[in-house]
Amino acid sequence: MDAVPPDAALPLGFATVDLDRARRQGLPEVIYAPGKQPGEIAAIADALLIRTSGPVLVTRLEPGPAAEVAAAGEHDPGEYDARARLLCWRSAPPGGYRVAVVTAGTADGPVADEAAAVARATGLEVTEFRDVGVAGLHRLLAVAGDIGAADVVIVIAGMEGALASAVAGLVGVPVVAVPTSTGYGAALDGITALLAMMTSCAAGVCVVNIDSGFSAAMAAHRLAFTLRRQHPAPHRAG
Amino acid sequence: MDAVPPDAALPLGFATVDLDRARRQGLPEVIYAPGKQPGEIAAIADALLIRTSGPVLVTRLEPGPAAEVAAAGEHDPGEYDARARLLCWRSAPPGGYRVAVVTAGTADGPVADEAAAVARATGLEVTEFRDVGVAGLHRLLAVAGDIGAADVVIVIAGMEGALASAVAGLVGVPVVAVPTSTGYGAALDGITALLAMMTSCAAGVCVVNIDSGFSAAMAAHRLAFTLRRQHPAPHRAG
Amino acid sequence: MDAVPPDAALPLGFATVDLDRARRQGLPEVIYAPGKQPGEIAAIADALLIRTSGPVLVTRLEPGPAAEVAAAGEHDPGEYDARARLLCWRSAPPGGYRVAVVTAGTADGPVADEAAAVARATGLEVTEFRDVGVAGLHRLLAVAGDIGAADVVIVIAGMEGALASAVAGLVGVPVVAVPTSTGYGAALDGITALLAMMTSCAAGVCVVNIDSGFSAAMAAHRLAFTLRRQHPAPHRAG
Amino acid sequence: MDAVPPDAALPLGFATVDLDRARRQGLPEVIYAPGKQPGEIAAIADALLIRTSGPVLVTRLEPGPAAEVAAAGEHDPGEYDARARLLCWRSAPPGGYRVAVVTAGTADGPVADEAAAVARATGLEVTEFRDVGVAGLHRLLAVAGDIGAADVVIVIAGMEGALASAVAGLVGVPVVAVPTSTGYGAALDGITALLAMMTSCAAGVCVVNIDSGFSAAMAAHRLAFTLRRQHPAPHRAG
Amino acid sequence: MDAVPPDAALPLGFATVDLDRARRQGLPEVIYAPGKQPGEIAAIADALLIRTSGPVLVTRLEPGPAAEVAAAGEHDPGEYDARARLLCWRSAPPGGYRVAVVTAGTADGPVADEAAAVARATGLEVTEFRDVGVAGLHRLLAVAGDIGAADVVIVIAGMEGALASAVAGLVGVPVVAVPTSTGYGAALDGITALLAMMTSCAAGVCVVNIDSGFSAAMAAHRLAFTLRRQHPAPHRAG
Amino acid sequence: MDAVPPDAALPLGFATVDLDRARRQGLPEVIYAPGKQPGEIAAIADALLIRTSGPVLVTRLEPGPAAEVAAAGEHDPGEYDARARLLCWRSAPPGGYRVAVVTAGTADGPVADEAAAVARATGLEVTEFRDVGVAGLHRLLAVAGDIGAADVVIVIAGMEGALASAVAGLVGVPVVAVPTSTGYGAALDGITALLAMMTSCAAGVCVVNIDSGFSAAMAAHRLAFTLRRQHPAPHRAG
Amino acid sequence: MDAVPPDAALPLGFATVDLDRARRQGLPEVIYAPGKQPGEIAAIADALLIRTSGPVLVTRLEPGPAAEVAAAGEHDPGEYDARARLLCWRSAPPGGYRVAVVTAGTADGPVADEAAAVARATGLEVTEFRDVGVAGLHRLLAVAGDIGAADVVIVIAGMEGALASAVAGLVGVPVVAVPTSTGYGAALDGITALLAMMTSCAAGVCVVNIDSGFSAAMAAHRLAFTLRRQHPAPHRAG
Amino acid sequence: MDAVPPDAALPLGFATVDLDRARRQGLPEVIYAPGKQPGEIAAIADALLIRTSGPVLVTRLEPGPAAEVAAAGEHDPGEYDARARLLCWRSAPPGGYRVAVVTAGTADGPVADEAAAVARATGLEVTEFRDVGVAGLHRLLAVAGDIGAADVVIVIAGMEGALASAVAGLVGVPVVAVPTSTGYGAALDGITALLAMMTSCAAGVCVVNIDSGFSAAMAAHRLAFTLRRQHPAPHRAG
Repeated sequence: MDAVPPDAALPLGFATVDLDRARRQGLPEVIYAPGKQPGEIAAIADALLIRTSGPVLVTRLEPGPAAEVAAAGEHDPGEYDARARLLCWRSAPPGGYRVAVVTAGTADGPVADEAAAVARATGLEVTEFRDVGVAGLHRLLAVAGDIGAADVVIVIAGMEGALASAVAGLVGVPVVAVPTSTGYGAALDGITALLAMMTSCAAGVCVVNIDSGFSAAMAAHRLAFTLRRQHPAPHRAG
Repeated sequence: MDAVPPDAALPLGFATVDLDRARRQGLPEVIYAPGKQPGEIAAIADALLIRTSGPVLVTRLEPGPAAEVAAAGEHDPGEYDARARLLCWRSAPPGGYRVAVVTAGTADGPVADEAAAVARATGLEVTEFRDVGVAGLHRLLAVAGDIGAADVVIVIAGMEGALASAVAGLVGVPVVAVPTSTGYGAALDGITALLAMMTSCAAGVCVVNIDSGFSAAMAAHRLAFTLRRQHPAPHRAG
Repeated sequence: MDAVPPDAALPLGFATVDLDRARRQGLPEVIYAPGKQPGEIAAIADALLIRTSGPVLVTRLEPGPAAEVAAAGEHDPGEYDARARLLCWRSAPPGGYRVAVVTAGTADGPVADEAAAVARATGLEVTEFRDVGVAGLHRLLAVAGDIGAADVVIVIAGMEGALASAVAGLVGVPVVAVPTSTGYGAALDGITALLAMMTSCAAGVCVVNIDSGFSAAMAAHRLAFTLRRQHPAPHRAG
Repeated sequence: MDAVPPDAALPLGFATVDLDRARRQGLPEVIYAPGKQPGEIAAIADALLIRTSGPVLVTRLEPGPAAEVAAAGEHDPGEYDARARLLCWRSAPPGGYRVAVVTAGTADGPVADEAAAVARATGLEVTEFRDVGVAGLHRLLAVAGDIGAADVVIVIAGMEGALASAVAGLVGVPVVAVPTSTGYGAALDGITALLAMMTSCAAGVCVVNIDSGFSAAMAAHRLAFTLRRQHPAPHRAG
Repeated sequence: MDAVPPDAALPLGFATVDLDRARRQGLPEVIYAPGKQPGEIAAIADALLIRTSGPVLVTRLEPGPAAEVAAAGEHDPGEYDARARLLCWRSAPPGGYRVAVVTAGTADGPVADEAAAVARATGLEVTEFRDVGVAGLHRLLAVAGDIGAADVVIVIAGMEGALASAVAGLVGVPVVAVPTSTGYGAALDGITALLAMMTSCAAGVCVVNIDSGFSAAMAAHRLAFTLRRQHPAPHRAG
Repeated sequence: MDAVPPDAALPLGFATVDLDRARRQGLPEVIYAPGKQPGEIAAIADALLIRTSGPVLVTRLEPGPAAEVAAAGEHDPGEYDARARLLCWRSAPPGGYRVAVVTAGTADGPVADEAAAVARATGLEVTEFRDVGVAGLHRLLAVAGDIGAADVVIVIAGMEGALASAVAGLVGVPVVAVPTSTGYGAALDGITALLAMMTSCAAGVCVVNIDSGFSAAMAAHRLAFTLRRQHPAPHRAG
Repeated sequence: MDAVPPDAALPLGFATVDLDRARRQGLPEVIYAPGKQPGEIAAIADALLIRTSGPVLVTRLEPGPAAEVAAAGEHDPGEYDARARLLCWRSAPPGGYRVAVVTAGTADGPVADEAAAVARATGLEVTEFRDVGVAGLHRLLAVAGDIGAADVVIVIAGMEGALASAVAGLVGVPVVAVPTSTGYGAALDGITALLAMMTSCAAGVCVVNIDSGFSAAMAAHRLAFTLRRQHPAPHRAG
Repeated sequence: MDAVPPDAALPLGFATVDLDRARRQGLPEVIYAPGKQPGEIAAIADALLIRTSGPVLVTRLEPGPAAEVAAAGEHDPGEYDARARLLCWRSAPPGGYRVAVVTAGTADGPVADEAAAVARATGLEVTEFRDVGVAGLHRLLAVAGDIGAADVVIVIAGMEGALASAVAGLVGVPVVAVPTSTGYGAALDGITALLAMMTSCAAGVCVVNIDSGFSAAMAAHRLAFTLRRQHPAPHRAG
């Protein structure tokens, strides 16, 4: 911890902004909107925009508060993606690392939107494969090769979440599974998919929180952190 | 209820044997062994063997008690299947209805053994497809046509139970899913598979209790009851 | 999987429509409305109406979105059943297979409406027996014979779900149990009924997801698939 | 609380014996064996036998410790019922109040044994109706009149616990439901039956803890307390 | 079941009214409002008012629908108690049996209102003891004698539900515990109180569903059924 | 209990006010607003203001009802803190005992507001440390010494609640952990944080209910009760 | 963290011993036995005995491993308390701070033994009040004054855990509640008591993990840490 | 799926061995021992050793069965690691990719043993950091730099699992969290740690099943699969 600079934390009263995160993790602190007032979000964003470099993100931000945040503070309005509920300043340029975002059904779309938007904002290249759940396996088999060509796969599924196992059985690259709250009754708001993905019969599936496209994108970003540390520019055919 | 004959229930003190079940359901009462003393099981079996016709079954019977039951009572020793933990007298002859029993992994074997043994004892014809879970989908795809040729499919899987959805997406016939307690941690002794199968993205999957090969076979028997009522001898190509 | 035709999946960007399902299961893909925009539903319906034959269904569609779907796309408005929340085009003619739909209480009505509407739209003949729960057993006993005359019985009950066991003890045909979210407190929004039905003391009860009249109807449709494969025209007295 | 006599609590170091319970509730404190050493049980029994009148009971006492308790202390050995796991001194004479003990299946027998033994030891008259679960309703209907003639009914059932609702729909007297741990998988060691009984569609069902024949008998004893307070000698035909 | 008269069930299409309940249980069927349309409630009420005698009750009826029910059908408007959400016709006269309704806190009031209103409507005499929870035990001790003088005690408590144990330790009469959804967080909407009351250290506590003042009153009514059968007119001092 | 004065409980019909609490606990009864009508709150407050001394608090009071309470009754309007949802009369003067209130994130702010406001109203001195969660440990380490200088620490955290363990490993003083409902999915509305804090690897962490800043402040007040009993005026350096 | 000395952590390969804890918390690291080999425990104990001063404790140590630990390593055998499963070296002398340990029932004894032994070993003075649960409130009321005279109260209860609320309503000092796994069925191995204590109607109850007498003693030790920091020698009458 | 070779699945009756996995995932199928007979394990191992290249692993194999497996079949005995419960043939040589395995406490050791052994057997280089849980943060901070130098970090923790958040806040590389069943009571056999890790406040933490060192190693292997695909030989300083 010796390397933590003396001004690594900025106290704002209602918050203590971590200004050291880009140094540790290659990305500034991300602002999670729920429970924060628009003015608070704007103040934290100002601090990050002034004192750090790199992308500044606000996640789970609904359109109404987004407009308030854009109007408050010292900053320019940034770019807001309503489907992904993401507000972003200073998106990173594409860094050559590829993420496949795969969904089981149409209803998983908003989670995929968040995953893809956060991944792109932090410099990853995203390819999407939507609605290829196991109820019609030929849809998945037709694109399995393309999915496996990515550096990391994000699989997003609700209900019983079986798609994560099917994909992980077909590809060798890392699989980050995102359970979603799609479904009703025994779906238990995503808990069933979470547990099912956790106990997948395919080896090496990792799971993040329900509906958290953001967490999956961050897991992919961590992978890119390792890849980049070894080779700034990836070599590949495709 | 007018049709219930006056001697439809036989009181034994510790039990009240339902002697009317074959009339209602085409099969005498089945004896569930846990919680019963061997002598009690033998006495109920005696009553059923004397007062009913058709197969008499004892399920979930461990080898030790099985020997005691065989030695007690008035009856011949019957046939005991240790893997299926099933004791049976007067098995039904094959009736022309076909059940496919499909498992996800080797560890689901004992549940499949029970399902197959009960199904055969009650006159169904069984084909087995073992260890074709979704971690290696080509194993399932290679036999999907054979599975779909059965009159009903029993899918047995633990962990995340994804096989039920995959099979139900491939075939049009009834699918009875049996969650198993295979797995650990988040598998929750089969609860995860149960919930997952319940919320399958493939339409029309039915689920029975955890590890209950017996219940699945009985569900298949109910289907044969309907089939038989319409046509005593099934017509088919294969 | 060799038989899957090359155009079996139609990518729409937000969805990948499975055009092969009628071949595999005797019924085109069914559209589950929640989480989809009306325009998305209309586009999928168009694709199915143009490229498949047979009934096209949209389930869990509320009246407002239903009007939007009817107005969008290339298709005629279809038939909307508000109680069942079902939008349907090209209903199948009655195929001679009979389903009994039985409810425990008046509050289970909407789930029965969905089960009956989906079953009828896919060519099944439905008889309904409402509000015959076990608190007044004579109501059930009076109609038990009629229930047992069907090819398959759908039992719909909330609270403790005891009706499934009672019916399954009285009839020999398949019993598909639907737990409902009727009740409060310890009813746990249907989880209690689900667990109870799962562990029914009557053998061979199959269970589908909470409030899913649709799943029960699809399970019945699978049974008809088997029946029809053996004999296109059922023979029966009643 | 003014009426509590000064010597109402006897401190033994490891326990504080409540000597006032018979005054408040018509029955001395009952000793729950689990977690207590045989010597501790014997010492508490001695205190109760010396300082109170009326029945002294030890519940959930396994045969081994029972022999140790009988041998320890100042008291005579008492009467031990191994099936009920009950040790008793000074049983109450029959007081004219009637309890019907009804079970769903043979495996519920030990819980019924405890309920009946405790009820008899405290002066209630017990009639038993075993194995009349809803899978064969005619068994229950045949004895419904006899069950309803009791002053209170104890219904003991595991699995889905449906018997409680069926009985409560047939009789007007108090129904105390005891869920049991009979069953497996979705039975959740009795939790499912507990929840199901709690949300019975039949009005006025009361529920006690899983496998607690003792609690049900105590609930019946409380009813007798009220009955006796009004009329020491019950009037009745049967 | 021989005694069930031929017209014991009245089919209304959406409902099957049990007209035999007064004969079996001394009280006509009670109408549970949730999930029923006002017109449906009115039709069932009409049937009961015409074909049975005794009180007719509608429970959990909100003020808006209550006005609609009162205006619909053939019946007079009845008496509506908004706090208890109870609509009643033909209340029973007081029958001499006494119920104590005890609450832990002010927030448990609405459940107590329902319990008291239903009890009074069915002929019981009610005494109330409000807000005497264990956080200030002297409040309970001051009235313990009065509580114990009733024929049956209904204890209503949320949060940790400790009041049920405290009361049951002080009185000898039956204790019916009602867990309420009062509280937050670990109170789990009443599940915690339900489980706690179920495992009370005081013997013989019976528990009904969360927030169900109705069930508790019905349990008390069952007790009165037994008391009345022995002696139409109770004898007592107080 | 001899010392309880005869007028220790004031019956108001809907409530029984405990007037003895200040004697037992150094603080009058606190009024929990949910489930109480504004008029009821005002009446209880009147009783406490007239018959007791010391602070009178109403917790969880939303702004609308707060205005109604202030306008009702005999009392002056008191001081209302909207963020803390606390209405207070007669705040205690600072008594020299120090509480550190520490939060993991900005979204935990309202719970901290309640804890701090209640603590201050009852005479404790509060220092706040906000947004120092473990995702950026240097923020916590920078203030660990200041936190440990307090007499008791309240740690408020949602999601995985790890901050409680981290703080408890750094300081020797009592740690009261408050899980919050911050987070989504696997956070289970605070249950996950509650369980996690309960099983902290740091010894001696105490936990109160989810989101209950009030309970934490009361736990701190109990500590001050002990401190004050030993020495009315605390001696300390800082 | 600057003050952490450079040799604050001792790596042993299988463990990293925290040698700084006495400085931070007034007590060396405590060794939790489960999951550790006797040789590992002995090695850690050696390290602590050599490099720290103050009491060294091993908790949850069964008699067999305890003998092995005593025989291994460099240390003297220490003092082993089999009931408390505690091995201790260098117990602290009594420091003048008082803990009351209160249990609901006899079966809670082993948890009380651990709490008392750990508390005494770390210098606290312990008074015990056993078996004073709420089923016989006069037992508790008789000793309430003595309990409230302690500096902190540890309340240990299983089943419904109501004793914590009752005690916390009677005393003003800190109350640390320990749920125990005493009970069966709905007691859920202590989860019910845990939840119930968490949502106690008495304000300011703190809860520690199930059966963790150790955690409660450590919470008491933290209180003594604060008391001692203010005044090394407590002043008091009793 | 065209590329799947015709002999990709080997049916053994009790199992269907997936012989194609090395092609898809760079590693042959791994044999999970529980639920398989030693002879079955040996037969599958034989098939894999003959028909595939690369490491062959049997996980969760206890010493007794391990000896039987080694003696059965055609194969040489392989290498058995009893602490890791891993049997291995043809371990992969070190491939230049680095995994840090970090544990919170000594009791998490066996899970770390499995993770490390599987990782090494599949060609990863492992560095271990044991017993650096958050109760003594200086232990973690001292090695944080070394942990962050690895290509991927496996964090293993039971109880509240806070270590995963702390590590993930300190490093930028992928973090795979393994909850363990260490702890008791509220630890819920690892469920609490699982949920807590899932909702970590540090972004991008991935979680695998409870106690599954194997799954974590496989997740690390997937990362190496991607790294290797880009550059067979990693470039690095350390």
